[in-house]
Amino acid sequence: MAEQWLTSLLTAGPQEGFELAIKLSRMGVKYTQPSAEVRDRLRPEYAENADSLTAVSQVVAINFQPLAAASGYWRG
Amino acid sequence: MAEQWLTSLLTAGPQEGFELAIKLSRMGVKYTQPSAEVRDRLRPEYAENADSLTAVSQVVAINFQPLAAASGYWRG
Amino acid sequence: MAEQWLTSLLTAGPQEGFELAIKLSRMGVKYTQPSAEVRDRLRPEYAENADSLTAVSQVVAINFQPLAAASGYWRG
Amino acid sequence: MAEQWLTSLLTAGPQEGFELAIKLSRMGVKYTQPSAEVRDRLRPEYAENADSLTAVSQVVAINFQPLAAASGYWRG
Amino acid sequence: MAEQWLTSLLTAGPQEGFELAIKLSRMGVKYTQPSAEVRDRLRPEYAENADSLTAVSQVVAINFQPLAAASGYWRG
Amino acid sequence: MAEQWLTSLLTAGPQEGFELAIKLSRMGVKYTQPSAEVRDRLRPEYAENADSLTAVSQVVAINFQPLAAASGYWRG
Repeated sequence: MAEQWLTSLLTAGPQEGFELAIKLSRMGVKYTQPSAEVRDRLRPEYAENADSLTAVSQVVAINFQPLAAASGYWRG
Repeated sequence: MAEQWLTSLLTAGPQEGFELAIKLSRMGVKYTQPSAEVRDRLRPEYAENADSLTAVSQVVAINFQPLAAASGYWRG
Repeated sequence: MAEQWLTSLLTAGPQEGFELAIKLSRMGVKYTQPSAEVRDRLRPEYAENADSLTAVSQVVAINFQPLAAASGYWRG
Repeated sequence: MAEQWLTSLLTAGPQEGFELAIKLSRMGVKYTQPSAEVRDRLRPEYAENADSLTAVSQVVAINFQPLAAASGYWRG
Repeated sequence: MAEQWLTSLLTAGPQEGFELAIKLSRMGVKYTQPSAEVRDRLRPEYAENADSLTAVSQVVAINFQPLAAASGYWRG
Repeated sequence: MAEQWLTSLLTAGPQEGFELAIKLSRMGVKYTQPSAEVRDRLRPEYAENADSLTAVSQVVAINFQPLAAASGYWRG
């Protein structure tokens, strides 16, 4: 991917870290399905299905782990 | 998300940590499905299905890991 | 949850740790489905299904990880 | 469980560690389904299904992680 | 596999790390299904299915973890 | 298992580590389904199914983590 979208794992706080985890999770999809049109078409399929939403939340949780470690868990 | 909902990973004890893990798990869903109305409608779909509940518990378990590490496992 | 059910991650040995991991896994379900009546009704659905049991065992495995780390892997 | 089945996470080598991970994975099932008769009846359901076997292997992989860490990865 | 495709886990930055995680995820498939013809035939099956894409993103997230650790989270 | 198949987690480089992760993943299956005849019969079931291949790749990714840690991420 020519575009630069991730230059650091460090964030100012845990919420920003969580939101970056969401971005990583979406980029994991985007690399496999680059078409925004297809991704938009698929959206209702998972955004209105409980198990799909749980699965999305799980990917976010996994991506959050190295981000939290990177920032020393924002212990201050 | 403009709202500030996560300012620290540190909690006073493991139960508070577990409950924060539940919050993270739900927020992972909320970012994907922001409509409270839709989430409420989906609730019976997973809250009365054994495998869905196991999947939810798994996301909580994953989210609990960095929270436990952040607080030094509350070793006291 | 008003009730206090988790005051420490430390256990006397690995088996107690494993059993606490089982408790965490069940609490992950209980927070989402607080009704004991519903949980009991769902029990045969997963306790007699091979894949459901594997999934439950996986949640226990994930919950066991921070408990093992908390107790220094009971190396002592 | 009154029976004592896990007194240490330490093993003499990685293969013994892997085999202990298998035991932990099975115990994660046994705590939920204590009936040996039911577990035996379910066996063909997953032992002859590719995805079920992959799922079992995944639980073993997760259980292997703390065992490997406990023994310092058997670096010798 | 005779071909040399992975000589280091170190990358110049997190985006390169994420892209290497994607490569590891694909190689995990390739070792099991070496036929490029079969893999290409299967592509629409997962690239146009929301849950399949979430699953792919999850594998990437797991592979990203040791890559991030290897590079010290690119803390600079 | 009487046969000795895993004497060390250490490998000369990351590719050998990845290939050992594949072996661990397969052994996790073999301990549950020891019959080579059955495993061969199941092969097309997962080798030509996209989601099954993703699941296999995920197990490899999990097994790769302790192997990478064991070898200090082959940082050289």
